Amino acid sequence: MSSEVDDDISNDSDVIIKGSDSNSDNFKESKITPWEVQGEINYDKLIETFGTKPITPDILQKVQKLVGDVHPLLKLNYFFSHRDFDWILNKYERNENFYLYTGRGPSGMVHMGHILPWLFTKYLQDKFNSKLLFQLTDDEKFLYNQDRTFQEIKSFTYENILDIIAIGFDAKRTKIIVDTKHIQYLYPLANEIAKRITFSTSKSVFGFTHSTNIGMIGFPPIQSAPCFLPSLIEGKPTPVLIPAAIDQDPYWRMTRDVADRMGYYKPAQIHSKFLPALDTSGKMSSSKPQNALFTTDDPETIDRKVSAAFTGGQPTVALQRELGGNALECPVYWYLRYFFDSEVQSEERLIKCEGGNLLCGECKSDLATESKSFMIKFKQRREKAKDMIQEFMYDGKPL
Amino acid sequence: MSSEVDDDISNDSDVIIKGSDSNSDNFKESKITPWEVQGEINYDKLIETFGTKPITPDILQKVQKLVGDVHPLLKLNYFFSHRDFDWILNKYERNENFYLYTGRGPSGMVHMGHILPWLFTKYLQDKFNSKLLFQLTDDEKFLYNQDRTFQEIKSFTYENILDIIAIGFDAKRTKIIVDTKHIQYLYPLANEIAKRITFSTSKSVFGFTHSTNIGMIGFPPIQSAPCFLPSLIEGKPTPVLIPAAIDQDPYWRMTRDVADRMGYYKPAQIHSKFLPALDTSGKMSSSKPQNALFTTDDPETIDRKVSAAFTGGQPTVALQRELGGNALECPVYWYLRYFFDSEVQSEERLIKCEGGNLLCGECKSDLATESKSFMIKFKQRREKAKDMIQEFMYDGKPL
Repeated sequence: MSSEVDDDISNDSDVIIKGSDSNSDNFKESKITPWEVQGEINYDKLIETFGTKPITPDILQKVQKLVGDVHPLLKLNYFFSHRDFDWILNKYERNENFYLYTGRGPSGMVHMGHILPWLFTKYLQDKFNSKLLFQLTDDEKFLYNQDRTFQEIKSFTYENILDIIAIGFDAKRTKIIVDTKHIQYLYPLANEIAKRITFSTSKSVFGFTHSTNIGMIGFPPIQSAPCFLPSLIEGKPTPVLIPAAIDQDPYWRMTRDVADRMGYYKPAQIHSKFLPALDTSGKMSSSKPQNALFTTDDPETIDRKVSAAFTGGQPTVALQRELGGNALECPVYWYLRYFFDSEVQSEERLIKCEGGNLLCGECKSDLATESKSFMIKFKQRREKAKDMIQEFMYDGKPL
Repeated sequence: MSSEVDDDISNDSDVIIKGSDSNSDNFKESKITPWEVQGEINYDKLIETFGTKPITPDILQKVQKLVGDVHPLLKLNYFFSHRDFDWILNKYERNENFYLYTGRGPSGMVHMGHILPWLFTKYLQDKFNSKLLFQLTDDEKFLYNQDRTFQEIKSFTYENILDIIAIGFDAKRTKIIVDTKHIQYLYPLANEIAKRITFSTSKSVFGFTHSTNIGMIGFPPIQSAPCFLPSLIEGKPTPVLIPAAIDQDPYWRMTRDVADRMGYYKPAQIHSKFLPALDTSGKMSSSKPQNALFTTDDPETIDRKVSAAFTGGQPTVALQRELGGNALECPVYWYLRYFFDSEVQSEERLIKCEGGNLLCGECKSDLATESKSFMIKFKQRREKAKDMIQEFMYDGKPL
């Protein structure tokens, strides 16, 4: 049985697209692969290039009807694209629940940009009462980063697990898979997948070259395997929904291409945008720590980073009072909107900012206060998580 | 630390060499990869092409000196080539023992051509008191054979394990690794290896192409991993000797190339020739069952196959009496020599045959009798092996 969307693997490795900057006629190049996101991203163009579908009002209405609550990240179009999310909702409506599957490449510490889709995943789990597989691709991150030792990756893996548990996923319905630790559960499925994918295909999907190491070339089926694991766990074809940033899409295109031939459902996806960096130079990234808020940052660090953030404000207070700020281009505004403001608060903030009745310092102060308060609680949950790791580890048994 | 021989990975994928047929001026092409052996093989040429060394009288003397017994397969030059076997012997002489490592790709039932190197491996284990890792590459055989299901490979794996145990390896010093079953022990090492090998290198060593599936491309480090596992098991750099047919050499060339960079000894090898098929059309092969004697063949089947075998005899009894037979080109003679005849018996047989005092029927009768007797005992050992599987399975603990 198959899902509605038929997609084939197109020649879109190393997708480089011309992104239109809404405030100018300049076109800037962007590059999106699972390992690299560069430049300004035109998300509408991505939907077209990747062959996905936009999240439409119909879908929001359906979600509202089914679970009585539409997450702000859906309303705000932060989760903006999907494959077969409508099919997943129809299945759910007919009493066939789905597994959630998402993941993390443990190449560094976790920042706000990482946890945003995880908070959304928790909403999905809570509302749809779904089981969740959370994969840590420690193998991939070791293989990709030529200079990283496995010991370093292992240490990030441990730290990242604390963050995942701290999100508050339901311990009874969530299992964490660490590739090198749980490879015995993934490997047979990965071989079934790998047998159906040629180097040629993999080259065009991921942009692999002759100088790519064979570990990286062999890796993608390991990330695909959890798409089909729920069917093995449940003993029947089981729908899977993947909430993740759009850069991971090449994996799912590849996986969807083999699903039919293996007798499984194609995994469905719901794709998020990237959280802007505090200086708006691109997505928030572990490699630019000054522009990202990490879950382990101390209050002084948060104050310093927020204080140095780019805003949509005018150069002077007088101009701000006169012309108003550009809230919609302001990372501080969006941080508050995505993480802390209610819908009503955010609308008020927008009106006040654009009307010149709010200064950047006030928004920064709000963001710093909220972030510090959030991090303090999050760190406490990270501490508690240290005793919960075993409970969350995948063990091959039904969830 | 490194062994003496420095070899780099040369451009010798899909080695196709001109083999000289000793009785004619015709040159016939042969092809040798880990997955395919075709045509007549010129073993001297292989040593040159692969960059290995011949087994010399010096080495035989050293073996004699160290363990007081030189195996017939060494004397007969069936094990004809090596890398660093001399280094292994020197290590042993200085009280540093080595691990043996060999393997089997479970793509079919086991025949005499398979067990010959295993019998030699048992000799090495017995004489040198060595520990042995025996790998079954069920993943490779599943990935390579497009039409085989994993269930089929799994069933061959089980049958092959019975054969391996039936050889009589020391249960206390031998562990069997089944890739899909023990992948958690191999995977971290395999990633360390894979990270150091590009597609380009792997393409030239194994002849992979753009239409090779990514499972096959990612596989070789899994076969390399047991070369370094003994160092992890023992907690110190540990020499490893691989007795195996020469077609597996590409794996070891690749492994040797990364060993230094990973801080391990380069694995040493001792290479065997291939057992000829009963019709001498090439090496004994599971894909031509009528020309191979399987360990599970019943007496009638053995009689039938041996009776139909090609020999070095003359077309008529009268001519045989007059001209004598060509024992050295007779597969029946070599089967008897490799498996059943003592050195003295074999010399007598040679003289009688070449002198016209032995008819092919007599040799065939001897071979059938010996083979049936061997198989009856071997099958009994295979039956007993069914209760010994767990004892032989690798468990990550020191041997």
